[in-house]
Amino acid sequence: MTTSTTPGQETRQQTRPSSLDAETLWRQDRDHFIHPFTDFSQFHDKGCELITDSDGIYVADIHGNRFIDGIAGLWCVNVGHGRHEIAQAMADQASRMAYFSTFNNLSNAPATQLAAKLAELAPAHLNHVFYTCGGSTANDATIRLVHYYFNRLGKPSKKRILSRRNAYHGTTYLASSLTGIESNNWSFDTLSELVTHLSEANLYRRPEGMSEEAYCDHLVAEFETTIADIGADNIAAFIAEPIMGAGGVLVAPQGYHKRMQAVCRANDILFIADEVVTGFGRLGHFFASEAVFDTQPDIINIAKGLSSGYSPLGASLISDRLYEVLGTPQCKGGVLSTGFTYSGHPVSCAAALKNIEIMEREDICANVREVGPYLEQSLKRLAHHATVGDVRGSHFMMCIENVADKTSGELLPVEARVGDRVAEEAQKRGLIIRPVGHLNVISPTLIWTRETVDTAVAILDQALAATTESLQRDGFLPA
Amino acid sequence: MTTSTTPGQETRQQTRPSSLDAETLWRQDRDHFIHPFTDFSQFHDKGCELITDSDGIYVADIHGNRFIDGIAGLWCVNVGHGRHEIAQAMADQASRMAYFSTFNNLSNAPATQLAAKLAELAPAHLNHVFYTCGGSTANDATIRLVHYYFNRLGKPSKKRILSRRNAYHGTTYLASSLTGIESNNWSFDTLSELVTHLSEANLYRRPEGMSEEAYCDHLVAEFETTIADIGADNIAAFIAEPIMGAGGVLVAPQGYHKRMQAVCRANDILFIADEVVTGFGRLGHFFASEAVFDTQPDIINIAKGLSSGYSPLGASLISDRLYEVLGTPQCKGGVLSTGFTYSGHPVSCAAALKNIEIMEREDICANVREVGPYLEQSLKRLAHHATVGDVRGSHFMMCIENVADKTSGELLPVEARVGDRVAEEAQKRGLIIRPVGHLNVISPTLIWTRETVDTAVAILDQALAATTESLQRDGFLPA
Repeated sequence: MTTSTTPGQETRQQTRPSSLDAETLWRQDRDHFIHPFTDFSQFHDKGCELITDSDGIYVADIHGNRFIDGIAGLWCVNVGHGRHEIAQAMADQASRMAYFSTFNNLSNAPATQLAAKLAELAPAHLNHVFYTCGGSTANDATIRLVHYYFNRLGKPSKKRILSRRNAYHGTTYLASSLTGIESNNWSFDTLSELVTHLSEANLYRRPEGMSEEAYCDHLVAEFETTIADIGADNIAAFIAEPIMGAGGVLVAPQGYHKRMQAVCRANDILFIADEVVTGFGRLGHFFASEAVFDTQPDIINIAKGLSSGYSPLGASLISDRLYEVLGTPQCKGGVLSTGFTYSGHPVSCAAALKNIEIMEREDICANVREVGPYLEQSLKRLAHHATVGDVRGSHFMMCIENVADKTSGELLPVEARVGDRVAEEAQKRGLIIRPVGHLNVISPTLIWTRETVDTAVAILDQALAATTESLQRDGFLPA
Repeated sequence: MTTSTTPGQETRQQTRPSSLDAETLWRQDRDHFIHPFTDFSQFHDKGCELITDSDGIYVADIHGNRFIDGIAGLWCVNVGHGRHEIAQAMADQASRMAYFSTFNNLSNAPATQLAAKLAELAPAHLNHVFYTCGGSTANDATIRLVHYYFNRLGKPSKKRILSRRNAYHGTTYLASSLTGIESNNWSFDTLSELVTHLSEANLYRRPEGMSEEAYCDHLVAEFETTIADIGADNIAAFIAEPIMGAGGVLVAPQGYHKRMQAVCRANDILFIADEVVTGFGRLGHFFASEAVFDTQPDIINIAKGLSSGYSPLGASLISDRLYEVLGTPQCKGGVLSTGFTYSGHPVSCAAALKNIEIMEREDICANVREVGPYLEQSLKRLAHHATVGDVRGSHFMMCIENVADKTSGELLPVEARVGDRVAEEAQKRGLIIRPVGHLNVISPTLIWTRETVDTAVAILDQALAATTESLQRDGFLPA
């Protein structure tokens, strides 16, 4: 690919043709790779789209078609694609010392340096790092550690976890139980007795006529009632994304998180922030909890932007108060027996260190703070389209909610595949965005300029117009 | 470090001094890194040992002391350390396309190529690959998929998983519940109603006077009785390591696995092989299940040697029969909603592809089949030491069980820290082995030659003699 990072009319140009055999790969993929979150009603016939190349704000498919990456890989390639210096840092570490156990007292330099760096970047009371390989395992490990903590404090009845409907916290058995997106668990089992789901904070679909302030009161009151019902003695923690991601980029009412934290404190309930998506710059700060929402979580979970996706890595940042308990043996011969072979993997940690160095050197958070509001405003100008019910989000974490009726907010039938239609029309024009049911998520690499925003929003404008036409043609909207 | 791969008297020599600041790193590690499986009775004072360099069969600490790596990182660096061509393959992929989503129909070339390669290497009926980031998540995902499978077949009561005492299957909430090592779950919660633990197959500690054949009958009968008690209609799967790893390198009696599989088949219970340790050459074959134990599991889980630890990666290999169900939608709009952001990570898959290429080119499995029996025989010659109760294992997966009394098999008290003592004495002499309670595990890189075995066993001989002396000196053994 060319190394130009200025988007423009040339986004659909053919780039370096791939040396890979497209036909063979397509067949191998269909026959052998069980993709995450696969829609098998289409997969066996349609198979995969192979993304093979990337550069800056772009990715390209195996046929050489280039696209602006509007989803940052999957909310994660924050510093953009093709960063040779991250690749080099990974290769250097892999050559020097690719892997050795970090169990017990064994360690390696990148894991240690990264732990110290994270403690420096995080809110002041979060100084202890428990490494995992991604967001799901960070959330899973966190709940195990929270149970361990209360067991150690002689409060073994404090077990229940409060999460929220439409929350997304991953797909281990435990993490999928925390997740509140109902369709995610169709035909799967979950730990329904361990987790109670509160209402999500959904300003767009809040009770009619309710002010934002009253809606916040309503949600906090529901939380207090739920605690009273279950009993604070039976509740270990509340887990929440600062802005809900896969559940539809739902921004809570002003002051919500701070008030929820206060309720937690009053009831000896731990407050866990899942910053897998919001962390590492997406809202303009390394961590959103304190800088944006004025909260001080007991645990912050991170992944994705931590390594900009260059290597699998997740982590839980643990407070000094919790570490006081976790960091003493539970009995004679007792060991804190949890963690993974690849906890603190040297190559993944080397990738994260270089990623953070780039973020600081280029002040990528400042770019998000500057370009983010422009992206919000520009996307909101698309609200005139027939299918656009809501445009919401913050900074580089945005979403369009497509509807059948803008006034009532009524949805189109599932068969209309409106999210897919918009995404397909955008992709034809050189922009990848993510369909999630009737929603479209826009979560770009954090290096978009105002010019990139202009290009992307122009494409979306055309894609939404084309979608309205095709929905009319297919009888899903009145002509 | 020098690039010599011939071990010898020079193993303790000072190598390239590290440019890293040892004192700063040691302090940062102690203050910020919560290690997996940490013994906090020692950690706060003792802190970490930093492993910073590596080459072939060696690793080196930050002070330049070089050691033969007798644990292959943690059962995983199968092709040995410092393989520049793996580092280069990772860097090339990270530069070209480090990460893009593999959800639904999106894919990348290395994940696709690796899936096809794994289907080629695995037993004939295992053709479908579900990627994770390690062994814990492979086991966790597998149980979710097994529940999904039986739910789809209209057998929702088939939930219970049978595992074994002293099994090790990882540390997610679910994986730690499968794990049967009691001390691993001290002060933690587990899913005790989901998992039933059978007896482990422990030839060394089997009922006195029982023949190997009778012991096998005994274990199979226990399995059948347990199934009768719980009811086959309530049991989803049996999960087992072909040779138990962290539980003490326990080799089952001849024919055990084949008979357990037959019982599974007769009762519509799925047979899951956890080959996280035994896979990728440790027993002389890419997969041990069929080649060594003549079983055809419904699912084989792999990690570790899959990428030789160069990048976090795990996978579940799923049978055609299961895929028939998993690969059809559960309902209109239904999606197989599981998997991770980093499922099929391009860089991890590129590392695995190069790792497999090296294994095939150098015929590393053949080296294990040739040198493995020599390692077994050589280690068995250490049985004369006062503390050695048992030397067991197979090929490059070996263990010494230390005892107070060789006749009765009585153990030394925990305070004697016999496993630690042997490991420390070996490390002083230039060999790292792993202490696990009163056991010492030897699980080398798969590139050891007969000469390496001679060097390592000579060091162990001295280490065991020194340990006997120190135990006598400290009053744990009679002088």
